[in-house]
Amino acid sequence: MAKKTDALTPRSEDYSKWYNELVVKADLAENSEVRGCMVIKPYGYAIWEKMQAVLDGMFKETGHVNAYFPLFIPKSFLSREADHVEGFAKECAVVTHYRLKNNPDGSGVVVDPAAKLEEELIVRPTSETIIWNTYKGWIQSWRDLPILCNQWANVVRWEMRTRLFLRTAEFLWQEGHTAHATREEAREETERMIGVYRDFAEQYMAMPVIVGHKSETERFAGAIDTYTIEALMQDGKALQSGTSHFLGQNFAKAFGVTFTNKEGEEELVWATSWGVSTRLMGALIMSHSDDNGLVLPPKLAPIQVVIVPIYKSMEQLEELRVALKPIVDGLKAKGVSVKLDDSDNKKPGWKFAEYELKGVPVRLAMGGRDLENGTIEVSRRDTLTKETKELDGIVEYVAQLLEDIQKNILQKALDYRAEHTTIVDTYDEFKRVLDEKGGFILAHWDGTPETEAAIKEETKATIRCIPSDGDTSPGTCMYSGKPSARRVLFARAY
Amino acid sequence: MAKKTDALTPRSEDYSKWYNELVVKADLAENSEVRGCMVIKPYGYAIWEKMQAVLDGMFKETGHVNAYFPLFIPKSFLSREADHVEGFAKECAVVTHYRLKNNPDGSGVVVDPAAKLEEELIVRPTSETIIWNTYKGWIQSWRDLPILCNQWANVVRWEMRTRLFLRTAEFLWQEGHTAHATREEAREETERMIGVYRDFAEQYMAMPVIVGHKSETERFAGAIDTYTIEALMQDGKALQSGTSHFLGQNFAKAFGVTFTNKEGEEELVWATSWGVSTRLMGALIMSHSDDNGLVLPPKLAPIQVVIVPIYKSMEQLEELRVALKPIVDGLKAKGVSVKLDDSDNKKPGWKFAEYELKGVPVRLAMGGRDLENGTIEVSRRDTLTKETKELDGIVEYVAQLLEDIQKNILQKALDYRAEHTTIVDTYDEFKRVLDEKGGFILAHWDGTPETEAAIKEETKATIRCIPSDGDTSPGTCMYSGKPSARRVLFARAY
Repeated sequence: MAKKTDALTPRSEDYSKWYNELVVKADLAENSEVRGCMVIKPYGYAIWEKMQAVLDGMFKETGHVNAYFPLFIPKSFLSREADHVEGFAKECAVVTHYRLKNNPDGSGVVVDPAAKLEEELIVRPTSETIIWNTYKGWIQSWRDLPILCNQWANVVRWEMRTRLFLRTAEFLWQEGHTAHATREEAREETERMIGVYRDFAEQYMAMPVIVGHKSETERFAGAIDTYTIEALMQDGKALQSGTSHFLGQNFAKAFGVTFTNKEGEEELVWATSWGVSTRLMGALIMSHSDDNGLVLPPKLAPIQVVIVPIYKSMEQLEELRVALKPIVDGLKAKGVSVKLDDSDNKKPGWKFAEYELKGVPVRLAMGGRDLENGTIEVSRRDTLTKETKELDGIVEYVAQLLEDIQKNILQKALDYRAEHTTIVDTYDEFKRVLDEKGGFILAHWDGTPETEAAIKEETKATIRCIPSDGDTSPGTCMYSGKPSARRVLFARAY
Repeated sequence: MAKKTDALTPRSEDYSKWYNELVVKADLAENSEVRGCMVIKPYGYAIWEKMQAVLDGMFKETGHVNAYFPLFIPKSFLSREADHVEGFAKECAVVTHYRLKNNPDGSGVVVDPAAKLEEELIVRPTSETIIWNTYKGWIQSWRDLPILCNQWANVVRWEMRTRLFLRTAEFLWQEGHTAHATREEAREETERMIGVYRDFAEQYMAMPVIVGHKSETERFAGAIDTYTIEALMQDGKALQSGTSHFLGQNFAKAFGVTFTNKEGEEELVWATSWGVSTRLMGALIMSHSDDNGLVLPPKLAPIQVVIVPIYKSMEQLEELRVALKPIVDGLKAKGVSVKLDDSDNKKPGWKFAEYELKGVPVRLAMGGRDLENGTIEVSRRDTLTKETKELDGIVEYVAQLLEDIQKNILQKALDYRAEHTTIVDTYDEFKRVLDEKGGFILAHWDGTPETEAAIKEETKATIRCIPSDGDTSPGTCMYSGKPSARRVLFARAY
């Protein structure tokens, strides 16, 4: 592994290597000795905590409450919904025993064969089954509906090829599971929550996303309809960043969850589920960062402003501290997260590189000359530019700068996406754009899984979604020449 | 199971039944179909979230950061520390396979024998091993120390006899794991964190605790010293509510974690770990609640004030809403969590009982006569008293009342504990007090595990702790007649 002091591999040379190095060097996460499971390091976790806090607030504002359901799912529960088990069976971690015992040969411990479970337990890959089995006890009448629960939890899907944040065997996420009296209400909820995800991605992550439906092939296992938000990474590949599922009455049927409606008739309950995960960390990193390291949107940066005094003596440091104190206090009073780094075991240059690597949006530096002139150096991480400013009004200036940076990062991502979204009409053009430029491609598709599969097989591009907005005029499928209802969004994807 | 509308079994009749009924009826938690695993329902989870928020703030104030480590622990890791594996091997959930496949007979899914793990994975019962294996990569020099990490996570200990919140196979907790350059620093950290737990218990849970050391027998598996906070429940039984462990160099030795000190010499790293869990929910419930339901300290109540308008017509409701609005707004402006329940599908009497059951500290009720008189009825959950107050100054009055209730609940618990703490000098008296009165007993003990085991065997009472404060004069062991260094704290315990 590259040492921390080495420069990052440039994105243009090897994007995937750049990503892996960045995640490790910026102290976001690392691989553990447990295959496919990561350790989320404090700096990475601090970003995730900020994401959680914002999302949790948005869920509560839309009427949701948190709850907690068991980690384990009896194997038989999984089989109740046919598509669901089909989708998850191949990646299940299975608990078969509940005790270890001393190895008779004296070397450590072994599984105690006498402690075999009657029914194996699956470590949840997602919680629809255990939750709907629980909801059965909570729902009798229309008065018990809707149920609007969310859970913050860890889940396990035994992926064979893993990458930090993007695809790990264990990951952290939230999963909303709601129960409704009517199809319309469940549909509305599904749409409301994909809207929440879109708003979060754009307003906090500064990451523009396309909202749309998944094709049948790409739907969640057990869903009638899956909405997705799709983001575009800097290497031209798409990343599915959040999904919201309209589950119809599938899970109510599987677990016998009915309610008595206002007319006294028994009906099956309607369901939705929706989730985002630590995968968003990967999306955040790949959306904005550059060859110098992370670029974080101010709204999610654990440290928004770092202040580095540059001093030649302890007396000078003391003078700088005095001069800097009103800035630190002023920024804190505005709710800005500030770190004053006056540690004397690291040189300023080392500090500059470190905070650049870690994506701190604004760096303030003050030295002896600044002290004399009443000035301070202000550096922006997003543009890598710096300027010398008067101390007078600096707090307001920096607070405004953080807002500007947030906007600028979003605009940059919007521009990148606009430059990398291509409308194509022929399959030859499609393949050429994919290979030469990548990005999102809007093209006509005949709506069949066969055509979708053939395109995927030949080009590795998939239908990311059938966009909810945009051009809805019909046309001709670029692959089969058959009629197409509207253009859909293709891309190679993570 | 008792219906929600039935009264609770009185504590005097069957304390254990009262507890179980209360947890379910107050919508705190319920058993799931997975043996020993609970579902934490939204109202219970809301209390846990409040606990988490306060504790997390206290951890951060004392310099800690959050991180996340894998759910799974390779079996061999567990064996590295001899006492540790001895302590946990018998209650480990073991993952042996990573895939299911369709049952050849067409009935559901079975474990795929081809997908057997080379090394079994243990679902973490606690994370010392996986964390110290990770710290090995983080620590080279004294400059890398201290490491002050905390993790909020789920853990699994396969308990045979489980009870909601108090003892469940899966539970939620936080586990702090710190690494230090010196014994003194690790000792200080261990003590600092048991102090944080004591402050949290007393200032937020309104639950007085005795701080002390565990006897050797009761120590955490792998610790050199375990500090505990011990609370007394209303049935006279003790409940261990939080522990902080000085681990010495045991885990550093087991995982080869060394650092180069300032003198350039290689040394083993010093460790602590500390944790509290959803068990605190059980402690909270049992400390204060009564035969009418939950009693919550205002600082942890999800709803601090409920307001119930009593109306005969929709016109009157409208008038009441107008009169109540400044109270709702005024309380919210003071940061009080208020719920105005004007739902018309439940009668006021039903609402009163429901919020009493759920432990809402203050209830305000306003009816037609109050409208005429400019008054409102104020009810306290802790004392079950009510009074009619002028509307003028009501916001300040209620805000002050919440503080008074918080203090009163703590005082009540302190009084109960004082009444149920007995100093005894003979073993006969010890047994008599245990059976007739229960509670904490301060008695002399000769310091040997043999005497401790004999007393436990004969009376089911255990040494809860060797108190850090209190009477330290020596004496004679009540059981063996041998010399005793000081009185220790005995009780029957959860």
